[in-house]
Amino acid sequence: MLTRRNFLKTATLAAIGSGLTIDKLFAAQTGSVGGSSALTGNMNRNLMDKMSTAGGESPTLFNINSNGLNAGRLQMTFFPYELKLEHVFTVATNSRTTTPDVQVEITFDGITGYGEASMPPYLGESTQSVMTFLRKVDLSSFNDPFQLEEILTYVDSLSPGDTAAKAAVDIAMHDLVGKMLGAPWYRIWGFDAAKAPSTTFTIGIDTPDVVRQKTLECADRFNILKVKVGRDNDKEMITTIRSVTNLPIAVDANQGWTDKHYALDMIHWLKEQGVVLVEQPMSKTRPDDNAWITAHSPLPVFADESLQRLKDILPLRDAYNGINIKLMKCTGMREAHKMLVMARALNMKVMVGCMTETSCATSAAAQLSPAVDFADLDGNLLITNDRFRGMEVVKGRITLPDRPGIGVVKL
Amino acid sequence: MLTRRNFLKTATLAAIGSGLTIDKLFAAQTGSVGGSSALTGNMNRNLMDKMSTAGGESPTLFNINSNGLNAGRLQMTFFPYELKLEHVFTVATNSRTTTPDVQVEITFDGITGYGEASMPPYLGESTQSVMTFLRKVDLSSFNDPFQLEEILTYVDSLSPGDTAAKAAVDIAMHDLVGKMLGAPWYRIWGFDAAKAPSTTFTIGIDTPDVVRQKTLECADRFNILKVKVGRDNDKEMITTIRSVTNLPIAVDANQGWTDKHYALDMIHWLKEQGVVLVEQPMSKTRPDDNAWITAHSPLPVFADESLQRLKDILPLRDAYNGINIKLMKCTGMREAHKMLVMARALNMKVMVGCMTETSCATSAAAQLSPAVDFADLDGNLLITNDRFRGMEVVKGRITLPDRPGIGVVKL
Repeated sequence: MLTRRNFLKTATLAAIGSGLTIDKLFAAQTGSVGGSSALTGNMNRNLMDKMSTAGGESPTLFNINSNGLNAGRLQMTFFPYELKLEHVFTVATNSRTTTPDVQVEITFDGITGYGEASMPPYLGESTQSVMTFLRKVDLSSFNDPFQLEEILTYVDSLSPGDTAAKAAVDIAMHDLVGKMLGAPWYRIWGFDAAKAPSTTFTIGIDTPDVVRQKTLECADRFNILKVKVGRDNDKEMITTIRSVTNLPIAVDANQGWTDKHYALDMIHWLKEQGVVLVEQPMSKTRPDDNAWITAHSPLPVFADESLQRLKDILPLRDAYNGINIKLMKCTGMREAHKMLVMARALNMKVMVGCMTETSCATSAAAQLSPAVDFADLDGNLLITNDRFRGMEVVKGRITLPDRPGIGVVKL
Repeated sequence: MLTRRNFLKTATLAAIGSGLTIDKLFAAQTGSVGGSSALTGNMNRNLMDKMSTAGGESPTLFNINSNGLNAGRLQMTFFPYELKLEHVFTVATNSRTTTPDVQVEITFDGITGYGEASMPPYLGESTQSVMTFLRKVDLSSFNDPFQLEEILTYVDSLSPGDTAAKAAVDIAMHDLVGKMLGAPWYRIWGFDAAKAPSTTFTIGIDTPDVVRQKTLECADRFNILKVKVGRDNDKEMITTIRSVTNLPIAVDANQGWTDKHYALDMIHWLKEQGVVLVEQPMSKTRPDDNAWITAHSPLPVFADESLQRLKDILPLRDAYNGINIKLMKCTGMREAHKMLVMARALNMKVMVGCMTETSCATSAAAQLSPAVDFADLDGNLLITNDRFRGMEVVKGRITLPDRPGIGVVKL
C-alpha cells in the first residue's frame, strides 16, 4: 500500500496548495462543519494555535498539520462563489449576469472531494439558504465515507427542500468515494464512456441577426442545439436557425404553451423542421393537458418542471415519454442514479440537464450521461470563471475524463 | 502501482493453485468461452502445446503461462458442481439429496471472479441448459470488465430465460470488478455492513418430535425462523415450534393456500403466534386474491413466485407489501440492485432470498442485505460441500466480510 500512500500524500499536498489560494475575501463567510469542531474536541489547543499562526483562515488548512489526527473524520468546508455569466441571461421576469453558487469540499484521510450548489434564483435557493443548510450538516458521526446511503439519507432528513445544498454535499461525497476507489463514477456504475451522447447547446432568444450569428459560431462545435420556445416568436427562432444549419434541435417550452391544440400543432411543425424532442410543453399544474400532448405528439416529450425527485417519476409515467434529471433539483448523484434506474424500469426515456455551474457539477452529472438518451450539459460553458477542468465537449460530444470520482482537477 | 501488481501476482498464484485441484472428472464437461478460443487465435501453437503438456485440462491453467498475453481479455471457465444436501429435501412432488449447480470463473488481467448457478429442478434450469447457455457467452469483444451494463445486457440478450446461468456470469463479473476496485459490493453500493439483518433459518416440515428437535438445535444460533406453510398441518408446525422457542417466525405459503378467506384467517392466527411476515399466500395465477389478502392482512405480505425480474415489480405494487429478490431468478446482482431501487421508490418492502447454493451465491446476495428488511440467506448452510468461505451467520446475523468483490475465498 506504499504507493497508494504516496499518491495520497501528493494529493494532500496538492489540496494544501489550492487551499492557500482561496480568496481571503471569502474567509469570513467560509464555513466549516464537522472538521474544525471535531478537531477542537480532539486536538491539543496549542497545536491548533500554531496552525492558526501558520496563517490559515481557510479550513482546508486543518488538513495540513494534522498528521493523521483527523484520519477517519469527514471534514466539510464551503464558501460562496459567484458565477460570472458570459452573456446576460434573460428570462421573462428579469435579466442577470451572475448566478449565486456555493463550493463545497469534503476531506477524509487526506483526500478531498469537490461539490457545488448552483442557485438560479427561480428555483428558490440562495447563497444564504445554502450556507444555512450546510452549517446544519454534521458529518462527525460518520467514520466511513462509503456509507453513502446512510450519510445522504441523514443529509436529506435535515430539511424538506434545499435540494441544491444537498446536491453539493452529495457531489463532494461521490468525488471523495470515487477517489478512494480510484475510479470515475461512470465506471463504478458500469457504464461505457464511449456511449456518452452529444450535449445540446442553447441558442438564446434574440433578434434574427444575433441568433444567426450565434448559431454560425457554434454550428461546427456542437451536434445538437437547444432552443427555448413557448413564446410568440417560436417559428421565427427555428426558421432563423434553419437558415444557417441543419443540426438537430431540442426545444424546451418551459411550460410556455397555454393551449394543448396550439402546442400539438406547433410540435408537428417543429418535427418538420428537424426538431427531435420537446421539453415541458405546458404548465406542471395542467398534467392532463401535458399527458394529452404526449399521447398525440410525434416527438418524445420530456418532463422538467413537472418533476424534481425520485418520488415524482411514477405519476408521470403515462404523461411524458421521458424525464430530465438535474442534480440541483434531485439532491445529487445518488438520487439521480436511482431516478435513471426507475425511469428505465418504467420504459421512460432519460435526459440529464444542468444549471449554469462550474465543471464540478457538470462533470458530476456527466458521469450518468453514457446511460441517457439526451444530455444538456452546457452549464460550464456559459461562465467565465470556472474553477475546474473536468468533463469536456469534444466535437460536440460529452467526453469523460478517466480521472477518479467526478473527474475534476482544480484550475 | 508496484504493490498492487504484487498483490495481483499473489492472487494469480493462488488461482493457479486452486485451478490445479479441480477434479479431472469434471474436465470433459468443463467449458471455456472467450478464454481459450481467444487464446488460440493469439498464441503460438507451440506454447499452447507446452502448456498442455504441463498438465492442464483445466482451463484455469491458461492463465498460468500467459505472461500478459491475455491481459485485457475476459476469460470465462465453468464446470458442473453437484451440491450435496445435509438433509433430504422434500417438496410436494419429490424428494432429493442433491441440487445441480454450475461454478463459473471469469479472469481478467490475473484477477479471478467467482460465480455460480444453482438449479433447483422446479425452476426449470438444469446443468445441461446452463452449460449450453454459458457456451454461447462470448466475452471476447469486451475489453473493460467495468462496463457491466453493456456486458450483462449482452448476456441477457442471448435468450429469454436462463436466469440462473445469467446470474452465474453476473456474480463472477461483480466479484471481478469489486476485486479490481478493491472493495466489497456493499461498500460500492454505499451500504453499512452493520445494518445487515439476521437471516431466517428454515425449519423443514416433519413430525412434531423432529420439528421440536430441529428447532431446539437452531434456536440459539438464529434470531428468526422460517416455516413453510400452506398445508394441512400449518397450525401443528407453528404450535410445535412455539412449544420450544419464542423467536419471531417468517412463513412462506409457496402459493399453498387456495381460499383467500381461509388464508386471511390463518394469517390472523399466525400473527398471534408471533409470525412477522407472510410470503406468497396464494397462486401467482390469482393476483386479485393475493391483493385482497394483502389489503386485509395484519402482517406484511411478500411476493415470491409472483415475480422474477425488475419488469415484474410495478404490477405488484398494490398486490403485495414487498418482494423477495433472488439472484437465480433475476439474473444476478446488477438487476437485484435495480429491483431494490425500484421497490423502494414504490414504497415496497424488500427481502433477499436464495436457493441451496454455495457461499459464492449467498455472499453475492448478502452484499444487498444491509438495505433490505428481511434476509433468507441460509442456502449455504444446507450443503455439505461448500467451495467457499464468505458471508457468515454470527449470532444469527448476516456478517459481511471486508474482502473485495463478493468477499469469498476458496476453501
